[in-house]
Amino acid sequence: MIERLKSRIENQNQETIFGIGDDAAVLQFPPHQQVLFSTDTMVEGIHFDLSYTPLKHLGYKAVVTNISDIAAMNGTPTQIIVSIAVSNRFSIEAIDELYEGMNFACKEYKVDLVGGDTTSSLKGLIVTIAIIGYGSKQEIVYRHSANDKDIICVSGDLGAAYVGLQVLRQEKEVFLVNPDMQPQLTDKNYVVERQLKPEARMDIVLDLKELGVTPTSMIDVSDGLASELLHICTKSNLGATIFEEKLPIGTETLATMASLNLNSTACILNGGEDYELLFTIKQSDFDKIKNHQDISTIGYMNEKSKGVNLISTGGQMLPIEAQGWAHF
Amino acid sequence: MIERLKSRIENQNQETIFGIGDDAAVLQFPPHQQVLFSTDTMVEGIHFDLSYTPLKHLGYKAVVTNISDIAAMNGTPTQIIVSIAVSNRFSIEAIDELYEGMNFACKEYKVDLVGGDTTSSLKGLIVTIAIIGYGSKQEIVYRHSANDKDIICVSGDLGAAYVGLQVLRQEKEVFLVNPDMQPQLTDKNYVVERQLKPEARMDIVLDLKELGVTPTSMIDVSDGLASELLHICTKSNLGATIFEEKLPIGTETLATMASLNLNSTACILNGGEDYELLFTIKQSDFDKIKNHQDISTIGYMNEKSKGVNLISTGGQMLPIEAQGWAHF
Repeated sequence: MIERLKSRIENQNQETIFGIGDDAAVLQFPPHQQVLFSTDTMVEGIHFDLSYTPLKHLGYKAVVTNISDIAAMNGTPTQIIVSIAVSNRFSIEAIDELYEGMNFACKEYKVDLVGGDTTSSLKGLIVTIAIIGYGSKQEIVYRHSANDKDIICVSGDLGAAYVGLQVLRQEKEVFLVNPDMQPQLTDKNYVVERQLKPEARMDIVLDLKELGVTPTSMIDVSDGLASELLHICTKSNLGATIFEEKLPIGTETLATMASLNLNSTACILNGGEDYELLFTIKQSDFDKIKNHQDISTIGYMNEKSKGVNLISTGGQMLPIEAQGWAHF
Repeated sequence: MIERLKSRIENQNQETIFGIGDDAAVLQFPPHQQVLFSTDTMVEGIHFDLSYTPLKHLGYKAVVTNISDIAAMNGTPTQIIVSIAVSNRFSIEAIDELYEGMNFACKEYKVDLVGGDTTSSLKGLIVTIAIIGYGSKQEIVYRHSANDKDIICVSGDLGAAYVGLQVLRQEKEVFLVNPDMQPQLTDKNYVVERQLKPEARMDIVLDLKELGVTPTSMIDVSDGLASELLHICTKSNLGATIFEEKLPIGTETLATMASLNLNSTACILNGGEDYELLFTIKQSDFDKIKNHQDISTIGYMNEKSKGVNLISTGGQMLPIEAQGWAHF
């Protein structure tokens, strides 16, 4: 499978000395760079449902979620290794589709697929990707390094991927009741795409570099804003205040939430898979980012003793508590 | 789970700047080093059978098979990331056992566990490990770089892990027929241990460095000698001749093979999981390795047109053909 794949792959990074075809890939990074190393697994029936997830999209998303981890460190992603465990109900053509989606994401983000294996599974499809990236010591941004009074920023808009998932599940139920029914997705394209084909915000990483801003802390929003903000607060030994009215949300997302009777703030705080970047900056850097169309400032860091709070549109102070985002 | 683990882990390598606890681990290698990157997956029911594989051994083996890939590149393994997908039939204590075996291997081989995740699976246990190591451009050894007339060497002895698997399967069958039966393993400890708790030959990598020998090509023997030799031949665009009487095999292994009516040469050629190193050296390096107790010279590389052959003890020339090692 990997050999099949090799013929279709062209390495894009000069950091890739040798890709697929030996016991290990061989990489070489520019001098004085630190190497970033991360992994993400997606399990059928836990992280995705193939009844509404095209395999090509799944491959794309599996790569993107890994790239997002490197983006969250303010690094440059360069190579991935893919491990697929798959039951015999999948055809070679199906696995080809999956790899095609991965290849497409690799091209989009200039990442090289340098190895991996495809094995049998007893049940279902499991995709594990390990990713490598790099950055200088000065560039790399951790979760633990936010400072008191830093401004809290988030890229893009939030809540759409979660709502997209609800739409897909609803359509699946309708389909199960009446298999002749066609899915009613046309006016919900944005939220569905955010769920099925998310993007990693490497553009924001590059924009911040161009603007001369190094975040003081950063994390990607994979499990909902509340959970990620709490990670930054706990690791930085600080609290935070964010404002409900500042939370970025798309018009279509809001309309879909309303039609599904979902509370938009709850979706933003506890919904997941937006893969936007949540980061903090020094107050002195505010002027540099304030005109960026796709970055919202949503609050500020404060002393740990003041806690982690949301100020509601009505002016109430609501404590933000750990709420894992429950997969379906 | 990973946070639980973090409290028990102490990083051993100065190359590990930041381990578990952020979106990615941060590593820094000495200047002018190339980075090695590989992965291996083990699936329950395909690669292992928990009815005779203790979880601690499984964890150990999962790490060792990855380290063996770095050894096969003549590199130094430094960090792993672990992804575990596990069904709810496993207790936290069981997963702890698995991690304990991994930790033990990490300590033995001075490798740092720097991240990973534990997710649910629909069925069974799947362990995927990605490994990073490094070496200088001059040190790293590929499969494709053997030369005509190079001497073919192999470390340790072969066939034991395969025979160990047959012994374990036989004991399982006996147990299934009569659950009161105690396993008769005492005189088969070596072959069983080779199956359940293999080692990566980092000692051979270090010995070769001390002896001033850089192999011209190398691969680890995970799928049987025939398959690995064919890889070196194909990638190096050469043929090879090996001698049956030179194939290294342990006395106990031989006795167990005889008692199971197994042909020893077939076991060595097609059995797997020995994790020994198969490598080629220049003829001028022969004197440096000839007194090494644990390295056997088994043949030589020849022109591609002469093929890949085994000379039997009786003097017959038998072509070696691709025979994947069939997992159970």
